[in-house]
Formats: sequence, C-alpha cells, structure tokens
Amino acid sequence: MVPASTLAAGSVGSVETRYLDLPAPVRLDCGQELQPVRVAYETYGTLSPKRDNVILVCHALSGDAHAAGFSAGQAEASTRDGFGADDRDGTAGKALGWWDGMIGPGKAFDTDHFFVVSTNLLGGCRGTTGPSSTDPATGRPYGPDFPVITVADMVRTERAFLDALGIERLAAVAGGSLGGMQALEWAIRYPDQVDSIVVIASTHALHPQGMAWNAIARESIMRDAAWQGGRYYGTGAAPDAGMGVARMVGHVTYLSAPALDDKFGRRLQFADDIRYTITEPEFEVENYLRHQADSFVKRFDANTYLTMSRALTYFDLARQYGGGSLTRALEVVTARTLLITFSSDWLYPPSASEDIDDALRALGKPTELHLIEAPYGHDCFLLEEDRQTPIVRRFLGGR
Amino acid sequence: MVPASTLAAGSVGSVETRYLDLPAPVRLDCGQELQPVRVAYETYGTLSPKRDNVILVCHALSGDAHAAGFSAGQAEASTRDGFGADDRDGTAGKALGWWDGMIGPGKAFDTDHFFVVSTNLLGGCRGTTGPSSTDPATGRPYGPDFPVITVADMVRTERAFLDALGIERLAAVAGGSLGGMQALEWAIRYPDQVDSIVVIASTHALHPQGMAWNAIARESIMRDAAWQGGRYYGTGAAPDAGMGVARMVGHVTYLSAPALDDKFGRRLQFADDIRYTITEPEFEVENYLRHQADSFVKRFDANTYLTMSRALTYFDLARQYGGGSLTRALEVVTARTLLITFSSDWLYPPSASEDIDDALRALGKPTELHLIEAPYGHDCFLLEEDRQTPIVRRFLGGR
Repeated sequence: MVPASTLAAGSVGSVETRYLDLPAPVRLDCGQELQPVRVAYETYGTLSPKRDNVILVCHALSGDAHAAGFSAGQAEASTRDGFGADDRDGTAGKALGWWDGMIGPGKAFDTDHFFVVSTNLLGGCRGTTGPSSTDPATGRPYGPDFPVITVADMVRTERAFLDALGIERLAAVAGGSLGGMQALEWAIRYPDQVDSIVVIASTHALHPQGMAWNAIARESIMRDAAWQGGRYYGTGAAPDAGMGVARMVGHVTYLSAPALDDKFGRRLQFADDIRYTITEPEFEVENYLRHQADSFVKRFDANTYLTMSRALTYFDLARQYGGGSLTRALEVVTARTLLITFSSDWLYPPSASEDIDDALRALGKPTELHLIEAPYGHDCFLLEEDRQTPIVRRFLGGR
Repeated sequence: MVPASTLAAGSVGSVETRYLDLPAPVRLDCGQELQPVRVAYETYGTLSPKRDNVILVCHALSGDAHAAGFSAGQAEASTRDGFGADDRDGTAGKALGWWDGMIGPGKAFDTDHFFVVSTNLLGGCRGTTGPSSTDPATGRPYGPDFPVITVADMVRTERAFLDALGIERLAAVAGGSLGGMQALEWAIRYPDQVDSIVVIASTHALHPQGMAWNAIARESIMRDAAWQGGRYYGTGAAPDAGMGVARMVGHVTYLSAPALDDKFGRRLQFADDIRYTITEPEFEVENYLRHQADSFVKRFDANTYLTMSRALTYFDLARQYGGGSLTRALEVVTARTLLITFSSDWLYPPSASEDIDDALRALGKPTELHLIEAPYGHDCFLLEEDRQTPIVRRFLGGR
C-alpha cells in the first residue's frame, strides 16, 4: 500500500525558490563554455557555523528545485497523489515539494541537523539556465542551440553554485534516478569534498532497454511537427502531442506491470459497456495515461525533456572514468556510499546497484546496499519514503 | 543464438496471394454489418478428399496472408533477418513468408500432410477489407468510418471464408500473439468444428501494462497531425511520424531487455567518439529503432494498426464468455489445446498461458503447456522455430 501521508508532520513549512547567477562560465563536456548561468535553488534547515552539515539533493528528469515544503502562497492547493508520484515534481498548483516526505524535521534528510540544498539542474526549465532561456548571442531562446549537457556538466554547475554560496564540503549528495547519477558523479569528480552519497533507484549506466525508452520519448517529441527543430518558442505552437506520448512512455516505465494491474486491471471506463471506440479511452488505464500526458505538457519544456533524457542516456561511469571498467572508475571514491534499490524497478533494476556495491566492495570502500521489496517500480523512490527513512537516517549518522 | 535459417529445406516454394469475396455480410460485435468483404489468402499443401486436414494459421498485429514460401517473382529479394523478426511480416521486397520456418514439407505445420490456409485479417491492409478499402457508401476509403473490429469479428470472417472454400472442419487453428487469440476464440465460438488449437505466446486477455503500450502506440498515431482524424488517404500526407513511434514502442515490447543488451549493449554508432548530439542516434540501439520505424511505415497502414491494436486490447475471454470467469468461458471447448510460451516474453507472459492451461485442466479438457526458455522476448514465436517444431509435430499427431 501507499504509505500514509506525512503531510502534517515535520514540514519545512513555506519556502521560496531563489536564484543565483554564477560568476564565471561553466565549461561543458562538449567543449563549449556556457555563460551566463543562473541557478534556481531552495534551502531547508540551517547552515552550521563550520558549514559542515550540507546535503545536496539532486532531482530526476522532470523535477525542479522545489524539493520540500510549500511554495509560498500555494499551501492550500497542495495535494499528495500517491500513485504516479512524480506528478508531484513541481506541478503548478501542487505546491508540495517532490521529496517532501524525505526532507524536513525528523525526516530522512533531517533539517533539524542538516542544511539541505536543492537546485534545478542545468538545462532545466524551472529557473536554471536551459534551452528555454535567452541566448545572449541572439536575444532569443536558445532552443536547439543550447549545448548538449551531461551529468558531469550538471555536477560542475552544482559545484560552482555551492562555491558561490561559500560551501566547500558536502556531508552528503543524495538523489534518485538521474539524481543518483549526480551523486555518483560527485563522488568521482570531487572525492575530497563529499563525505557520503545516497544513491537511490539509480545506476552507473542505463541499460539498453532504458536507452531505447528514452530514445523513443525523444523521437516522439522531435517527430512532432510543432517541435519545429526546437524553435517553437513564441510561435504559438509547441510539441504537446509528442511530449504527451513521451510522458506516457516514461510513466509506464516508472511503474511496474503488477502496479498497473492492481490499480486499474482491465476495468472499463463506463461500467461494463463496451463502446467500440478506437479514438476514446475505453479502459481506465488508457484514461489515466491521457491524463498524465495532458498535465505534464502544461508544466514542462520539451527541449529540457530532450536535454535531460540525453544526459542520463550518455551517463556511463565505466566509459567516462574507467576505460570500460566500473571498478577502475570508482577507485578514486572516498565517500561512504548508501545504495537503495527496489525489487520491482525494471528501469533502474537492482542489478545496477549491485554492480556498484560489488565494485566498491572489491575496492575496500565503505558501501551498503538495501533492496526494498515494493511493487511500484521506479516510482518507489518517491513513494516508499517511510521505508527509506530509517535507512537513510542511520546512514547519515543516526542524528 | 538465433537458430540457423531453414530457408532452403522444406520450402513450399513460390506462392501467390489470392482473393475471395464473401457472399454475405459479416455481422460484427459492434452491431454493424460489413459488406462487401474481400479476404486475401494463401494455401500450402493439398486438401484431402475428406477435407479433414485443414490447418488455419492466424497472423499477429502486423502480419498478412503470406505466411510461407516465396511470393511469386520475388524469391531473389528474400532475406531472413533473425533479430527483430517481425520485420518479415510482409515487408515489401522481403518475400519469404512470416512463418516460413514453421510451415512447409517436414516442418511444424507439415504441408506433406496438412492443407494450411492463411488469411489476412479483417481490418487488414494487405488485401482483406479494412480501413483503407473503399467504402461503398461514399466511394472513398473508409478511414475512421471503418467499424471497430474484435477478435470475434476476425474469426467470424475466417469462418465465412472457409465456408466459401467448402471447408467445414479444422484439424487445427494456430497462431502466435493476436493469432493465438483467434485460435482460442475459434475453440469457444465453433467448438464442434475445431479438432485442436495451437496457441503460441498468447493470452486470454492482455494485461494492463500491455494495454498501456498499445494505447500509447495508438495515441502516437492519432496525435500526429497528419493522421487527420483518419482521413489521410489521398491527401499526400500520412501519420508516418506517429506510426514510427508506435512501431518503436511495439518493437521494444516484442524484445527482452537482455536481448537488447546482447545485441547492442551501450555501443556508440561511431567508434568511441561521443558526438554530443540530441537529434541524431548516437547509440546503435537508437539507430536500430529508427530503422525499424522507417521500414515499417512504408509497408503498413496506420488505420489498420489502430484497428488491430484495439481488437487485441478488447480481447478478454472471461469477460466475453464467462461472466468474468476464464474457466466458465472455456467450458464449451472440445478442441485439444497446445500452449507454447517463452520465458522472456513480458508482453504475453507465461503466466497467461498457465492461466489457460490451469482452467482447461480444471475442466478436464486435454491441454498441454510448454514453456521454452529463450531470451528473445515475445519475438521468440517467430524466432524459436526449431524448438517449437517437434512440440507442434507431436501434438498434431506425429505425422
């Protein structure tokens, strides 16, 4: 069952997204330098005088900086839709942060002790510089001229952002899915500056079927004539049709087959009447997908979707850092590693976390892997907060 | 490994698709009557004087009547692409039948003994009446006015077609996937006229995740502006973009994650060079999907895709015939049943065949279930011919 809402207890309360302009260009893997770069962020808790209690929380494909608490002025509008959880990722009018169940006083990332920082990723569409931002060279949105971003580029941007805040070390970097990739990238790229990483429902490299799903989502967007080669801003058209299909594909990969069975079965929309229609959603599961698609396109930019999807497809620690060997790639890691994975997650399967755990263990690095038996697929990392909480709290020092 | 081609041995040789116009309207589940109905078909082997050696072979979503042998005049063009096998289903220029490895002298469906009949399904686009056929009421293609078709409607059409050929009884009805659904439907609808059914990689009802994939494929087609509400014939435009995405989705569901891993891994298209491109297929698996999409749209009609996808989504024996109980639905069956399923098939998983086997067994009906361990997912029914052959031959009487 979906865990009971932790809405009332331990909220960080009303929060506001802030913005910081980086003082220097970000040098990217593709060879370009990007400038200016603005970073949208939120913080929860209090920075210690020694600045040694910072946890960086990294979001997944469709998330944003608003990880916890209520967006100012929108508290009443908040809802928690347990199933299909990443509808929470910044949906307009749903002001509760996307990982509110994990961040707050007494929660997994305990704001009574830690200063939690959350940023919108480079390439994003929720306040951080991305394809919909203005290209200073033209005065118009970058669109397809925005450089191709890697997970390393996201992490470089996070590093520069924290420098600007005057934060050198991180007690932890934490995230699920693409967020977990960033945590791993941090541990390799800045080993002296990260005490621990919390890698949830993630991988060292997406498997080929996951690459295929992501490719299909991108094809769906790019084949939509309204995409216009990425220059749809200001044209009055946007690739909503393709984005909708991309979201449906994503959504099914985030869930598990048994979860869809439990939730919808083969129930018809309208009693037991077959209506013999091809164009309308005859079954509940069909209606659900259409709803997911329609709500997503209202809040998310198609070029950002392409950027994020590409970044997580490229991510491959063994290739990037190990000459093909994951173990070699992880040799430099000094951070303690916590891996959490879910039995029903077929997009980021347990085997990927096991690979990481095995490699770290072979190197004599401190690592622990927790496999949580739960039926909701990849979405578990957003849903199974109550079961992750004790694991994360203990790992972070029992505080 | 993909089994060695059986191209040379046991071919039925050069064949030709023929056409038959049904003498009466087909009454459909939706309440409409369809007329005229033309059926495209092929036959292999010789009809016995007693007309008691007929096997009806039923195709899957994207197949056609050309199940075995070489299409006349195209023999030289034939190839066998082992992986992603249903590219064989009637691809123009690939003249080998889609189940040639199973049909022929000495093969599973042995044309030295049986008279094998294969038709293009009602709603098809390869010679049988479908959405691209001319609507006699308007003189233009039906398009979206073509009635919604069910598996029962397909089987009624097959029954009427065989009547017209003078064939009353069937020694067997056989098929994989949607073809297996037809075999089951035959056994319930015409129990006195079917001696046995061969149901391969199929189900009594698609599970909700499979329904979701099918819904996404249809949404992709219908959201393509070039679909034009289904009235794209003669406009110079067709929903190729949406059809391409639909095919990619389908293709990934027909394979297994390990199969994609074995075949492509995370290999880049161009040596080990990252090119940092979002729009181009950087990885081999991405290029493969694009190729599958492009070749499919050249040979298949979008409205037929919608029709077939809808029919297999509606199919639900328990709902149709058992008031919700599969066992009750199967009570009337008298045919011997052979079920073959594949360990890696997650679209039509072994559990579905087990459900059928269990229900038949509980009813005391003759049934046998064979689970073949093979890594290629749903496509196994087209690929694992060598392993299915002895099972099918023995079941059909060791002839």
